[in-house]
Amino acid sequence: MENKKEIPYKIYLEENEMPKQWYNVRADMKNKPAPLLNPGTLQPMKAEELEAVFCKELVEQELNDTDAYIDIPQEIRDFYKMYRPSPLVRAYCLEKKLDTPAKIYYKFEGNNTSGSHKLNSAIAQAYYAKKQGLKGVTTETGAGQWGTALSMACSYFDLDCKVYMVKVSYEQKPFRREVMRTYGASVTPSPSETTNVGRKILAEHPGTTGSLGCAISEAVEVATSTPGYRYVLGSVLNQVLLHQSVIGLESKIAMDKYGIKPDIIIGCAGGGSNLGGLISPFMGEKLRGEADYEFIAVEPASCPSFTRGKFAYDFCDTGMVCPLAKMYTLGSGFIPSANHAGGLRYHGMSSVLSQLYDDGLMEARAVEQTSVFEAAEQFARVEGILPAPESSHAIKVAIDEAMKCKETGEEKTILFGLTGTGYFDMVAYEKFHDGLMTDYIPTDAELQVGFDGIPKFPGNEI
Amino acid sequence: MENKKEIPYKIYLEENEMPKQWYNVRADMKNKPAPLLNPGTLQPMKAEELEAVFCKELVEQELNDTDAYIDIPQEIRDFYKMYRPSPLVRAYCLEKKLDTPAKIYYKFEGNNTSGSHKLNSAIAQAYYAKKQGLKGVTTETGAGQWGTALSMACSYFDLDCKVYMVKVSYEQKPFRREVMRTYGASVTPSPSETTNVGRKILAEHPGTTGSLGCAISEAVEVATSTPGYRYVLGSVLNQVLLHQSVIGLESKIAMDKYGIKPDIIIGCAGGGSNLGGLISPFMGEKLRGEADYEFIAVEPASCPSFTRGKFAYDFCDTGMVCPLAKMYTLGSGFIPSANHAGGLRYHGMSSVLSQLYDDGLMEARAVEQTSVFEAAEQFARVEGILPAPESSHAIKVAIDEAMKCKETGEEKTILFGLTGTGYFDMVAYEKFHDGLMTDYIPTDAELQVGFDGIPKFPGNEI
Repeated sequence: MENKKEIPYKIYLEENEMPKQWYNVRADMKNKPAPLLNPGTLQPMKAEELEAVFCKELVEQELNDTDAYIDIPQEIRDFYKMYRPSPLVRAYCLEKKLDTPAKIYYKFEGNNTSGSHKLNSAIAQAYYAKKQGLKGVTTETGAGQWGTALSMACSYFDLDCKVYMVKVSYEQKPFRREVMRTYGASVTPSPSETTNVGRKILAEHPGTTGSLGCAISEAVEVATSTPGYRYVLGSVLNQVLLHQSVIGLESKIAMDKYGIKPDIIIGCAGGGSNLGGLISPFMGEKLRGEADYEFIAVEPASCPSFTRGKFAYDFCDTGMVCPLAKMYTLGSGFIPSANHAGGLRYHGMSSVLSQLYDDGLMEARAVEQTSVFEAAEQFARVEGILPAPESSHAIKVAIDEAMKCKETGEEKTILFGLTGTGYFDMVAYEKFHDGLMTDYIPTDAELQVGFDGIPKFPGNEI
Repeated sequence: MENKKEIPYKIYLEENEMPKQWYNVRADMKNKPAPLLNPGTLQPMKAEELEAVFCKELVEQELNDTDAYIDIPQEIRDFYKMYRPSPLVRAYCLEKKLDTPAKIYYKFEGNNTSGSHKLNSAIAQAYYAKKQGLKGVTTETGAGQWGTALSMACSYFDLDCKVYMVKVSYEQKPFRREVMRTYGASVTPSPSETTNVGRKILAEHPGTTGSLGCAISEAVEVATSTPGYRYVLGSVLNQVLLHQSVIGLESKIAMDKYGIKPDIIIGCAGGGSNLGGLISPFMGEKLRGEADYEFIAVEPASCPSFTRGKFAYDFCDTGMVCPLAKMYTLGSGFIPSANHAGGLRYHGMSSVLSQLYDDGLMEARAVEQTSVFEAAEQFARVEGILPAPESSHAIKVAIDEAMKCKETGEEKTILFGLTGTGYFDMVAYEKFHDGLMTDYIPTDAELQVGFDGIPKFPGNEI
């Protein structure tokens, strides 16, 4: 606590204050997240099975639920220094505009070319791929942040990068594609004719504009059928949450330095990479009984995995080529409506977060996109930053909580994750400005169609 | 000099280290920049004449060539804290990639929603407009960074903001327009039917896609004919260079802190706002004989104001409604080719920089756009940041200088201004990737057409 008096607008850690280890929240969880299952045998996936898909050291990280801290290799720390530490910002102007006694902080992850926090895990996964002597990696991308991040990371380590981009995004976001090309990645619209699973999906659903689940299936097929390649994923997996813990660790170090303790911690949740990364070190304290915090996951009402999903084993992808993960899910066949927060359009949720939620350690809220864009614009006008639609889900609930404090007079400290910028989402903003944005909440019957596709086997009753 | 041993990747000043005054390089210039002239009387513009167009306090700043330091009002310093200090980055990865003994630093101004350094002056101009009790301001924008910056600043101070956007940009960059709308600005494609000068230009050149010079004329007309409005400008003017000195001041404070002295300082030059801001405090030392530096202005070969222009009094706008400024100019009738660095497509140049250049205190180089994009991509791949085409002009020459050091073995320290990000320039990157980018160098005969339009009067022979 160097200075308790004045909190600067932006807190930047010094390089020597930056985390040297990731924090693995699973080590402190009493109820561990359930293991991935082989869909054929329904037995837990063994390391050697996973290593056909993922890099060896990443598989170790995926399965490690005992070590609380894992060293960040120097090469990754050097790369982190190029765009990290990210600022922890005191939202003085937003507080003033809302006239709230709440103190609002946000950890801003958008100051890098990927435009989001995704780079934190991309560089780690690329590093381990390079270390293993691979030629390249494959992945999918929806909104495009993950694909951009991975192409940046692969360019840095001179790895080939094959990205399967959900067709609708490929067509609607040509600029994201060009950013990836700038970094030397090859980008293929999914579903494509380049894979068996892509051809099958195209035959069954001619004219489909694709989904994240389809693109995952294609990327996995290419990785497992091309020598020298592995598949990497930008969210959901335990390893990704591990890498993303750098967000929470930096936040905590910065807050501790100034003697700040958050009461409420808020993050948007698609697959859970940002939320998991942000809350991990704070959740660790809660799990160890050292401190208490309120955690809120925010998801789109159009894709309500936490608030309306089932906690069950399910496929991570549409083509059903991936292992089964136990998670809050809407069913791998659920196709979310065309919400503009592409990064939150995923039927499932990180197993770690699903377990924590099921254990009552965190809350979840579903919000509608028009109200999210209202919050986004309000935020942009006073805090300067044009937020991504995904991030704006967290802004919406942070503002809601700050307004509650205004009613009650409580001086709560709110921390939220501002995952990225919306520069490639101006089509969505345009719709919002023109009054053409609509909200969509799936009916119970529509959700049931997704639930019907959840695999049925003993112990997986929903 | 707190630490001479290890230079971090990024140097961020503490809030209390940030400049509290702007630096006015004119105070230290022996040959002052020539005054603006009334085009009717050819007499220097008086304050009261300028106040019909510009805010009162900004006119004072425009005419003040004696005070070396001018206080930055607290309200502006508070806004600066939202997105400043900008990082001074040591380009370790670029140095390694080039295998050069040179030490390369860049001051990165792109970490804000305007995507460039333009916000530094926008917030100042909006502040003085608000202080004067105005209803709003008008301006023009080409590539869109300035319009975005001004709309952000006006939103913060609750001022109306009318932006005339060069038609070709309005159509090709709809996303920039949406960012401005997010901040509540009204955006009109120029030339438009809303002004006399716009209608005149449209009648004379049906189907024209506009130019910065036309848009300036329209914005000035609206400001001077609408009660409660004034015109603001994002470059060229003395006041703008004054506000932008925050770039150079922060750079110098950061470098002094670590005992670093640059040998070469490089900036791209359109109207001169970034270059002038970056070099000002260093140029001050040179003018006072306290230190020596090499300064290099980089401009597009397609719009070579410094390297092939005339040093003469000329109009700042196509409609010839603005005062005459003495500057290096290609003639207000010169229409630059469709270079992708829209922010550098201006026929003239800051009077301050023009005088310094004419006095032999700085150099200038013209570079072709394909080589600029090659440098941009090389930079992006190792330093992570996707640079704006404008900024990439400086990157190109910084790399050239670093490669010279490799040949000679000299360990020069190079500082360049990285003015912004290229997220809204992906059409240009796409052309580059697809091999469709062309270079264009105007012939002497083509330049002569522009020169022929420079006003002729005693003392203004070219």
